[in-house]
Amino acid sequence: MSSRGGSQPTPTEVSRAHAQVGTDERRARVAWSRVLENRRERASDVRLHLLTEVLRIGHVQAWHRLVDGDLPKCASARAHVASVDVEAELDRVARTGARVVIPGDADWPLALSQQDIEPHLLHVRGQGCLADLVQRAVAVVGSRASTGYGEAISRELGAGLATRGWTVVSGAAYGIDAAAHQGALAVEGPVVAVLPCGPDRAYPEGNRRLVDAVAERGVVITELATGTVAMRHRFLARNRIIAAVAAATVVVEAGLRSGSLNTAGWAEFLGRPIGAVPGPVTQMSSAGCHEWIQKGRASLVTDSADAIALAARVGDAVDQPVEQLGPARVLDAMTTVQRRVHDVLRSRSVRSVGAVAHELVLPVEDVLAELSVMSVEGWAEQDDGGGWRRGRGPS
Amino acid sequence: MSSRGGSQPTPTEVSRAHAQVGTDERRARVAWSRVLENRRERASDVRLHLLTEVLRIGHVQAWHRLVDGDLPKCASARAHVASVDVEAELDRVARTGARVVIPGDADWPLALSQQDIEPHLLHVRGQGCLADLVQRAVAVVGSRASTGYGEAISRELGAGLATRGWTVVSGAAYGIDAAAHQGALAVEGPVVAVLPCGPDRAYPEGNRRLVDAVAERGVVITELATGTVAMRHRFLARNRIIAAVAAATVVVEAGLRSGSLNTAGWAEFLGRPIGAVPGPVTQMSSAGCHEWIQKGRASLVTDSADAIALAARVGDAVDQPVEQLGPARVLDAMTTVQRRVHDVLRSRSVRSVGAVAHELVLPVEDVLAELSVMSVEGWAEQDDGGGWRRGRGPS
Repeated sequence: MSSRGGSQPTPTEVSRAHAQVGTDERRARVAWSRVLENRRERASDVRLHLLTEVLRIGHVQAWHRLVDGDLPKCASARAHVASVDVEAELDRVARTGARVVIPGDADWPLALSQQDIEPHLLHVRGQGCLADLVQRAVAVVGSRASTGYGEAISRELGAGLATRGWTVVSGAAYGIDAAAHQGALAVEGPVVAVLPCGPDRAYPEGNRRLVDAVAERGVVITELATGTVAMRHRFLARNRIIAAVAAATVVVEAGLRSGSLNTAGWAEFLGRPIGAVPGPVTQMSSAGCHEWIQKGRASLVTDSADAIALAARVGDAVDQPVEQLGPARVLDAMTTVQRRVHDVLRSRSVRSVGAVAHELVLPVEDVLAELSVMSVEGWAEQDDGGGWRRGRGPS
Repeated sequence: MSSRGGSQPTPTEVSRAHAQVGTDERRARVAWSRVLENRRERASDVRLHLLTEVLRIGHVQAWHRLVDGDLPKCASARAHVASVDVEAELDRVARTGARVVIPGDADWPLALSQQDIEPHLLHVRGQGCLADLVQRAVAVVGSRASTGYGEAISRELGAGLATRGWTVVSGAAYGIDAAAHQGALAVEGPVVAVLPCGPDRAYPEGNRRLVDAVAERGVVITELATGTVAMRHRFLARNRIIAAVAAATVVVEAGLRSGSLNTAGWAEFLGRPIGAVPGPVTQMSSAGCHEWIQKGRASLVTDSADAIALAARVGDAVDQPVEQLGPARVLDAMTTVQRRVHDVLRSRSVRSVGAVAHELVLPVEDVLAELSVMSVEGWAEQDDGGGWRRGRGPS
């Protein structure tokens, strides 16, 4: 039930609610965004019912149906339509220095329009073009209760990614998030902060200067209406946006129940690669990272090069890792024994079959058989004297 | 060429060489072991040729053929038969407190008799029965240039494994190896040290007391003849025995080129699971561990429970992890979304579809569909009121 006890709009209020939106997609989305965020109830089927209805018939039509009471199960939402003032809302947004961006705008990141996770709109504050910024972006997230170790890694990751032209996406929280942003800002690199509150706020308030700095170099975004304060369910929903705009999500320090693993969960849901940075096993601060690596849900990441390799697997605007990944994949196609043989061969000098067999403590016959197979693929080359050198693989 | 310049045994020496072995398998293996280790040449096809010949026709017959000059390509080995004194060798072994164990003896670990890695014999020193000790064994290996962090983990692993009745196998080197042994000894647990030198020696000499302590609680083993000193190729060959007698190998701290990764390579070759303990990415001391985890060659291990779970996957004498692993494997069969749904369900209270959908920010219809599928396998259960609780999976 709504905070207004279920009272429904008067005929005058209904007319005004229709008129506010008309046929304008942007205004319809602003209205919807406000109606939904005004609702005080927490867990409820209605919100999701609304989302699916809206997705089916579109925001404009859904708004008019809602106002007319023609959306089933949405009585509690309808009770809020009278309180919506689209014009005032747009004014408030503009006063924060933000703009409303909706699907179809040049600024809208296509990555957000998949698998029913699309926000109604985004408030975007800052100089950058959001769609451009997230063309090559990696999310760096982690615990607020971070250690000096975690913060150093996060800063390094942020700086390393930004230096290589990758946008650093995070949530502007204390600890790992802040360090990632700071790292990117320190090298004047591209950066995006996704807030769990309205565009007029910062969360935590203590990071307001950081958020402003992000807006100056990149953009600060939120799907939430002005005045909205951070709450648990909003963190969870915010995390899906972090995961969705980034090609990969890297978790730096997370305990077993860290909220940052929720972001990783979103990345998993979206089919994006997840990285996790290990740390001392003697501290719980990296236990969540270790668990995800252990279960195969995250890849182990040690630095920004690892993070980029992870992100680049799915990205298309890649500069460096294409050549790197090619051979690596083919190398994986070698058998374990072949990889061992390849390891002991040298590219600039030859070794006898016997020497290789001796070092690997394998029968000569077996090594010879493997070398023959490897020479077909170019992984090993025989010289005129019968010795073997390491080959570079398929050319 | 041999150290004796290729001179071959006289008829008298030939008779004596035959007589020393007769039809005794143990004496033949002692003789072979001595002939091969006497050879000063390093990399060479001959040793491996010998190994394969011997494996085919057996040690006794191969010995007599060698003595008669009927083994092709083995002239250099034959030059050493005159210097072999089996009786004196057995005396020397006995004086070190060791016994000669060969395949077929009750002490012989079957795990050593596979894939052409079988030693000719083992010198076993200590109170324990080797075959029993390695029934449930985990190898703990790592860098000699270890950090305090690595040593603490290694000690903890050694103690944790031993406490749970798992034998700790290592190489008695400085650093990680020594710490693993010490951890096991501290809880008076089962322990095995594999030496890269003869049974009368310790390597490094500084660890002689540690080696003696291991012999008192468990066994110290080596395939090398008395008097043999540690050399690079002997470390590599020794490592195969460490990997072979253990159900799993765990690497604690290894740089990118650490010798302990050679042991891990053997475990891989033998198809045994490999674990690696992560550490700070800011130090190179764990870089080898991180690389192996990253490439999927090792599983991330944080404690002795992880190590046991790894080892128990292939072992049969398992006490605890059977129930653990069953459901875990089945859990993996759930889709990502199903796992997320399963995570938010509770086993002792019910939640509405809407509440679950809201927390996961998923459409109600999708969650309902997943729950239906999950209920078939018992992963979710619906109560009379329509709410859902977490199920325990297939029963």
